[in-house]
Amino acid sequence: MTQPATLEALSLARWTQTMTHSAIQDALAAIAQPDVLSFALGLPAPELFPSELFAQAATHVLATEPYALQYQPALQPLKAQIVELMAQRGVTCREQQVFLTTGAQQALSLLARMLLDPGGQVIAEETIYSGFLQAIEPFQPTVLTVPTDLETGMDVDAVEALLSDRARPAFIYAISDGHNPLAVSMSAEKRARLVELAQQYGVPIIEDDAYGFLWYENRSSPPLRALDEQWVFYAGSFSKILAPSLRAGWLIVPEELVPTLSAIKEASDINTSTFTQRIIAAYIEAGHLPEHIATLRRVYHTRRDAMLDALQAHFPSEARWRTPTSGLFIWVELPSAVDTGELLRRAIAVDKVAFIPGHAFGVGGSRRSAHCMRLNFSNCDPERIEEGITRLARALSR
Amino acid sequence: MTQPATLEALSLARWTQTMTHSAIQDALAAIAQPDVLSFALGLPAPELFPSELFAQAATHVLATEPYALQYQPALQPLKAQIVELMAQRGVTCREQQVFLTTGAQQALSLLARMLLDPGGQVIAEETIYSGFLQAIEPFQPTVLTVPTDLETGMDVDAVEALLSDRARPAFIYAISDGHNPLAVSMSAEKRARLVELAQQYGVPIIEDDAYGFLWYENRSSPPLRALDEQWVFYAGSFSKILAPSLRAGWLIVPEELVPTLSAIKEASDINTSTFTQRIIAAYIEAGHLPEHIATLRRVYHTRRDAMLDALQAHFPSEARWRTPTSGLFIWVELPSAVDTGELLRRAIAVDKVAFIPGHAFGVGGSRRSAHCMRLNFSNCDPERIEEGITRLARALSR
Repeated sequence: MTQPATLEALSLARWTQTMTHSAIQDALAAIAQPDVLSFALGLPAPELFPSELFAQAATHVLATEPYALQYQPALQPLKAQIVELMAQRGVTCREQQVFLTTGAQQALSLLARMLLDPGGQVIAEETIYSGFLQAIEPFQPTVLTVPTDLETGMDVDAVEALLSDRARPAFIYAISDGHNPLAVSMSAEKRARLVELAQQYGVPIIEDDAYGFLWYENRSSPPLRALDEQWVFYAGSFSKILAPSLRAGWLIVPEELVPTLSAIKEASDINTSTFTQRIIAAYIEAGHLPEHIATLRRVYHTRRDAMLDALQAHFPSEARWRTPTSGLFIWVELPSAVDTGELLRRAIAVDKVAFIPGHAFGVGGSRRSAHCMRLNFSNCDPERIEEGITRLARALSR
Repeated sequence: MTQPATLEALSLARWTQTMTHSAIQDALAAIAQPDVLSFALGLPAPELFPSELFAQAATHVLATEPYALQYQPALQPLKAQIVELMAQRGVTCREQQVFLTTGAQQALSLLARMLLDPGGQVIAEETIYSGFLQAIEPFQPTVLTVPTDLETGMDVDAVEALLSDRARPAFIYAISDGHNPLAVSMSAEKRARLVELAQQYGVPIIEDDAYGFLWYENRSSPPLRALDEQWVFYAGSFSKILAPSLRAGWLIVPEELVPTLSAIKEASDINTSTFTQRIIAAYIEAGHLPEHIATLRRVYHTRRDAMLDALQAHFPSEARWRTPTSGLFIWVELPSAVDTGELLRRAIAVDKVAFIPGHAFGVGGSRRSAHCMRLNFSNCDPERIEEGITRLARALSR
């Protein structure tokens, strides 16, 4: 008999050899240091979590629903509540089109598995949510990129050019409101044209609307899904409007796709916890959600403005940013000589402040946004925002 | 401009075209009829769920832990508790080797994604847990099958023959205790030889131990992981020993693999709910788990025996089954002319009783077990078990 093999002999799936390092994991590790002030992650304000109402809901659910802890199909009442919630976004849909997921990230991951062949094509913006790139990475796709205009959103002309030039993507990925990380909302005209292209070329759009309910001065425009129910697959989430650790999100998809998604979901994790689904349903049934979302909008609006003021007061005059109308982020462009990856290391070590550097959102490791930074404004109160931006300006001035 | 495309034009990933229909989903639909008595699914007894203690734990967690509802990395105290739990299975491991998952099904799904290339090879038994087949299906692997001896488990000689004949599987899938669906536990000799083969050929074993804590007369033998910490990747679950809807399970893997698994997990669903993790940790911390598992063993032992007695009393003399020493199932072999898929349709429609037909567990649609049935004994009390087996015998006698 030969010698036992050592673990170096273990062969992993080929795609893992080129796996991207997660900037988010790095950020989690960095901000675990208690004295680091963090604008890095898209974290809700923990002091606003409705903990007491959730405790009441959990107690009620466990006392009255004998199957709350059992394997169970997705909860029908919660689907009906999501239909009502979608109406507030200007979307008309039916319960049969609602598919519950373990958060919006799982929604993206399941759709990628349903739509994308290994080595297939996808259309996405050059600078985009890193979790989306992680969701498609196992399929090693070719990502056909289009630029983003920071006033009006995704370059839809560029999408059309790709499609008319015989690109055959499995889908187009789009964030129409509260873009992560670019903090832009797509213009009404571009929304209409993008949906027309999807219809014309028979290419579905995955619309990631994790932030669409968090608008400030004016209500967000209706999402792409309001314009088409066949070609827009909409992903929503309770993470930002209720609580991330409930791990609950949803898809709105054509009803014909639900059986396929159900089988993919079952293979992935059987089903989404109906215990947490029931807690959410009980909380919504008691009528608390509209007031809670209104509170989030009010508080985050104040924090957004505090961060804009602090940037104006402390950041160098060459820095550029815009006022986001929705979402949880401000996107800051610095002079092109600045490497925000480098800056982050110093900012954490010396100034005890964190953010996500632009390169973390670059498709295929693109350095196009390497002079930019994403700043989150929801997780810190105005005083800490002022302190953190002061620290960051100090790091920049060195 | 051309006409808008209709949804028929939508192209899904190729693997979905040959997707297997889920027997489990069918069963869920069938048993949703309230008058159908079900032995179909591996459901825990709902009357034994510790609902009140969970409500106390949830209230405590929400009142005392401000980050219980936030995005959070996996809970360190729960990892330490799992290390202690594993010691009860005869396994020595460290917290750094524990990786928390959204149930054991996700553990299988993540490992498949980490280890398996599209079109790769896997070694598994001919008749095996259908959820495992669903987890690997998107990779369209070649499953190299080996038979199972219903007294001693997986045919390890056949595994060796495959490996020595230059098979290069990404992994071997094994259930050493409370086999689903075959209800066998692997002999000590076979356990040792299987682990030696894994070491010798450098092929990892995925050990699915969802049922290993539920042994009856005698404690289960230590799982494969007790024999090797490099080549055995162990999947455990709180679904059967606490509650499925908490969606919590774990892997014990070499520490070097944890960063890769973390990135795959993050892409799949960010993280496992730390709210439910905290409920479990609080429940275990309060010392309730050992007594709860002892209760499950006692009650399920009684139910197992009630089902064995009922089979003896009512089933035809040609039927064959064994006494399972662990797990939640009895595997019944009927004369080879019986098609249990056909039988199930009649049994549900006429006799109002359900089970899972053997063919649902056949690799690649194999009909080798088409005359067999999997019966669950944990979800019904002895009286309903007697009634259900009587109904099933009636269906069989027609």
